[in-house]
Amino acid sequence: MDQLLRVMNFNVSSDGIGAGEHQSFERPFGVDHAERLFSWAGATASWPMRADPGGSRGLDDYFTRDFDRNIGAEIMGRNKFGPQRGPWQNHEWRGWWGEEPPFRTPVFVMTHHTRPSFTLSDTTFHFDDDPATVLERAREAARGKDVRLGGGVTTIRQFLDAGLVDTLHVAVSPVKLGSGLRLWDSPDELRDRYLLEVVPSPSGVTHHLFWRK
Amino acid sequence: MDQLLRVMNFNVSSDGIGAGEHQSFERPFGVDHAERLFSWAGATASWPMRADPGGSRGLDDYFTRDFDRNIGAEIMGRNKFGPQRGPWQNHEWRGWWGEEPPFRTPVFVMTHHTRPSFTLSDTTFHFDDDPATVLERAREAARGKDVRLGGGVTTIRQFLDAGLVDTLHVAVSPVKLGSGLRLWDSPDELRDRYLLEVVPSPSGVTHHLFWRK
Repeated sequence: MDQLLRVMNFNVSSDGIGAGEHQSFERPFGVDHAERLFSWAGATASWPMRADPGGSRGLDDYFTRDFDRNIGAEIMGRNKFGPQRGPWQNHEWRGWWGEEPPFRTPVFVMTHHTRPSFTLSDTTFHFDDDPATVLERAREAARGKDVRLGGGVTTIRQFLDAGLVDTLHVAVSPVKLGSGLRLWDSPDELRDRYLLEVVPSPSGVTHHLFWRK
Repeated sequence: MDQLLRVMNFNVSSDGIGAGEHQSFERPFGVDHAERLFSWAGATASWPMRADPGGSRGLDDYFTRDFDRNIGAEIMGRNKFGPQRGPWQNHEWRGWWGEEPPFRTPVFVMTHHTRPSFTLSDTTFHFDDDPATVLERAREAARGKDVRLGGGVTTIRQFLDAGLVDTLHVAVSPVKLGSGLRLWDSPDELRDRYLLEVVPSPSGVTHHLFWRK
């Protein structure tokens, strides 16, 4: 079985926007009302960050439940790790994900500004430079399992442009954001290389499932 | 986390029929064209019995992919194990599932006619009597994971009547069978106890997802 590189549970608005251009510590997504993009996931029983029991077990739960299935590593862009730009001022701040990050595998943060690896609970963060190198290290760390490409928009676009992405699950919310970082003008842009199924969920989001032709 | 009892990837016709009344060695499902009920699953990349690479990675694949996730045991009725009725004539025949059964966990076959346990590859078959006893043994064998209720129709109905089923995924095919063992006249019959999402798939089947209110 191949080791796939998979985009999973990635959230965009109806106009294709996944995050804003003005990220800060206070606004990790850089857009107002960003929580409206991922509230569908938080409502499910299998949401990885769920603290209390309960939650839905319908269609959306199959997507959050799949988050860690056969996944051996995650790749994320620097902006999913933190809002800093340029050289690190210090190494004390260890990301937006708290002391119990939900990944529970090695995570490879793609950045020109590398720093030493560190471990929080079951998750170890590594810092590396270009897509090909990062993917090679992530595949090795995943020991035969698939690799999740966690985003954000810029990182996914880079891996798509390099032809490295095998499958994508993008949840499109019925919310228009107008400005911000755009994944696509239309999902049809990817149809030249991918098969696409469009699946409306009773929750209001529309799941877009792409896999290579 | 509770240990759920889950019906998964169970196939019925548009008129609610899951298997026939005239099972035999030649016709394991006891109906003509039964393969039309589960062809959607065989087309997916993650179908547990898939021998060749390829297959779709759209919506239907999320259901076949979920087959073994967090599952520690399966319960099945005797008719899913074999077509014999009454006392076993011998113990040489070891079920319809070949030398590499797809379950890869302990399997508990519910039957009044018990026989010694045996192991085929990663799957051990046990034989036990009533729903409550079988469920207790399966939960213990599952070591904290969920238990899959594999069917067939009669077995699912027994566990539903006993109030023991936590979630159901039933794939309804656009095929009318007319006669055979019926799971329901309408899925709405379960709405008094379960929430229901009805999700049409591009493949033509309609996934029905139930979870307890």
